[in-house]
Amino acid sequence: MWNSLYEFVRVDRNRELLPIVRPSSRGCPNILFSLENIMPDLKRTLLAADTPRLVLDRSRLAANIRNMQARAEAAGVALRPHIKTHKCVEIAIMQLEAGAAGVTTAKVDEALVFIKAGIPSLTLAYPLLRAKKLDRLLKAAKKRSTGMRFVADSEAGVKALSAAAKRRTMELRVLLKIDVGLHRCGVAPDSADAVELAKLIASTPGLRFTGILSHAGQVYSATNAAEAEAVAQEEAHCMALAKERIEATGLPVREVSVGATPTVLATKDFGPATEIRPGNYVFLDSTCVRLGLAQYRDVALTVLASVVSKNDTYCILDCGSKTLSSDMGAHGGSNGHGFGQAWSLDDRDMAGQPLVVEKLSEEHGFLRRDPDSGWDPDLGERVRIVPNHSCPVANLAVKYLVLNEKGKSRKWSVAARALVR
Amino acid sequence: MWNSLYEFVRVDRNRELLPIVRPSSRGCPNILFSLENIMPDLKRTLLAADTPRLVLDRSRLAANIRNMQARAEAAGVALRPHIKTHKCVEIAIMQLEAGAAGVTTAKVDEALVFIKAGIPSLTLAYPLLRAKKLDRLLKAAKKRSTGMRFVADSEAGVKALSAAAKRRTMELRVLLKIDVGLHRCGVAPDSADAVELAKLIASTPGLRFTGILSHAGQVYSATNAAEAEAVAQEEAHCMALAKERIEATGLPVREVSVGATPTVLATKDFGPATEIRPGNYVFLDSTCVRLGLAQYRDVALTVLASVVSKNDTYCILDCGSKTLSSDMGAHGGSNGHGFGQAWSLDDRDMAGQPLVVEKLSEEHGFLRRDPDSGWDPDLGERVRIVPNHSCPVANLAVKYLVLNEKGKSRKWSVAARALVR
Repeated sequence: MWNSLYEFVRVDRNRELLPIVRPSSRGCPNILFSLENIMPDLKRTLLAADTPRLVLDRSRLAANIRNMQARAEAAGVALRPHIKTHKCVEIAIMQLEAGAAGVTTAKVDEALVFIKAGIPSLTLAYPLLRAKKLDRLLKAAKKRSTGMRFVADSEAGVKALSAAAKRRTMELRVLLKIDVGLHRCGVAPDSADAVELAKLIASTPGLRFTGILSHAGQVYSATNAAEAEAVAQEEAHCMALAKERIEATGLPVREVSVGATPTVLATKDFGPATEIRPGNYVFLDSTCVRLGLAQYRDVALTVLASVVSKNDTYCILDCGSKTLSSDMGAHGGSNGHGFGQAWSLDDRDMAGQPLVVEKLSEEHGFLRRDPDSGWDPDLGERVRIVPNHSCPVANLAVKYLVLNEKGKSRKWSVAARALVR
Repeated sequence: MWNSLYEFVRVDRNRELLPIVRPSSRGCPNILFSLENIMPDLKRTLLAADTPRLVLDRSRLAANIRNMQARAEAAGVALRPHIKTHKCVEIAIMQLEAGAAGVTTAKVDEALVFIKAGIPSLTLAYPLLRAKKLDRLLKAAKKRSTGMRFVADSEAGVKALSAAAKRRTMELRVLLKIDVGLHRCGVAPDSADAVELAKLIASTPGLRFTGILSHAGQVYSATNAAEAEAVAQEEAHCMALAKERIEATGLPVREVSVGATPTVLATKDFGPATEIRPGNYVFLDSTCVRLGLAQYRDVALTVLASVVSKNDTYCILDCGSKTLSSDMGAHGGSNGHGFGQAWSLDDRDMAGQPLVVEKLSEEHGFLRRDPDSGWDPDLGERVRIVPNHSCPVANLAVKYLVLNEKGKSRKWSVAARALVR
């Protein structure tokens, strides 16, 4: 099954080998970037690039991928990253090469990008009801022999999956979606629906009941690491309860898939989970920094922007809501202040105090000037911004400018951007 | 100069002729859509389409274009619509055919789309400082003989334009950007800078001082039509002051360009303006409805979405912040409640009470169920949503599904989407 992935790797001539990065004692290294002797090359590349654009720090990205894989392996669970954050085939391949079991996607059209690229195993973690969507997905998955898993949270969803399985003469693995507190999709772990739907999936022709799946997205409204850990514990509790109740009917729950980046960073005990599905960890953003789960220098994705005008209060940047998004955090959450934190290009480690992007128009960012900060960007100066929520920011861009530790750059496509169907 | 536009029109075989729409007494007609005998065809088309997607109501779009043109002509000013809202060549052509003097764009790469499509006259209403950007724009404009205007609000901007004019042996028309209260780009009308920069532009080789330009974006935080009109009056006052002070130095201010959709809808007296540059009026959105400047049935752009899950509180829709954006309004403004208003497909005129999209995840909308509303969408049911701010919503989509009054559909490309540089 891995053959198809390596076929893809072989034919993609733009692909680099993974860089070798020395891990630091704190787990998320950025040692190479802090060496003063290579800084001029990096800065030169950033000064030459047109703005606004998304810059990916290659060694931070690699470190984030390696660290999460190590965390999963230490806990004895599989890692199946959600690609909604990066939407990029090159990054999915880095994740698989590091040891990920497959990927997770939300929408059918974004799944097709990864299936066609040869990713061998994929969970479509979104309720599907419509024959047309299912058919276009299954056609591609069958052709590529992609290992697929689906979710369902309603009788209508189970019927739609069964009908699609029949049309394409396939057996589909189905996970029951459990609501662990976000109150979005899924059935409550203590509900009659949880048991009845599991039994329905198991007894429906063409479907194989594979386990249960959750997303504790409410963690994004936590205010610190302890609160995030409490959400992870509640998720573990809900999933253990659902598993126990379903297994009491004689039905084995083989897989228990959980995950959001803050919950998996906040705990080492995943309870009954067999798999975690974080997405945001590849890039991180100021939300995880606010929660105390990462530092700014761990963030791999920044927005490079230029000052195009200045007034008494603000430096006006050439990036607005059409670059930074107007998200204050995931799921409508807020980090309290502004739409991004900006640093000087000279502060590679983001160790100093940032200036805040306080307001956004569509193509303008209002960077609040601060006379006490010691940094007042000049007209034309470039800044690097850590966004509140990296996922929608990546979705707004066409390409990443990927920089290695020597300042060499290449471009990767945000291949699954805007594929919301 | 118009030849190049008509060349484009001729070679684009997908382009339809404009529909003939009967204007109603209230100026923004939707008569054809309310005829019951054609509703089944429209509904059939909407039921067949995959979701989520952006639907454009062709006759509402045509009416909005025609009505704004009539408003400009009645006031004796030119209309130069901002394409940031639609980013679509087909719509720009409709605007020009209705009588627009040209178009306005924010960024260089989006301008290139319209230059290459043969749009004959274009204002780049964004401060440009960088030689690389100016050169790629001027190269294309020169090749197509596109009539270009630029803005400047700093000495550095004037120098950059002059250097570019010299490199490409062109004369560039430059408008001085005036800050009329948004406090973003531009110089204050009563400042020494306003007079000095106008004189600098006029005396700089390669540049022709053409006039002054403003954007009263603060109007989006108004709460009613009277407040919006007051912003328009303040803008007119500022522009009259700037014009008078510059002309007192002996320098004629030939053009006075103003505009945002709410200010131009809220007033009939544009003061010293010679040109208006609204953008949002082609689609409208719930912001203009909130201000009392339009009704929901005037809105040409809606998001078609499906219910994919239901819980006690919400219908979960397949459109989240990656479709609706997380904008509460333009320039960070808010309309107070939620991320869109949803109607049943049976309520074509949006006359009934909508349900509110109260929260968003990236790919999920939380539509609040309301037992008193008489409408509780079923699992799988389609809804039509009016967004808070149509501009970023269009920017997130790849195509518009354009429907005419008979339910026939075609697709138009959001050709300048994501072109933020």
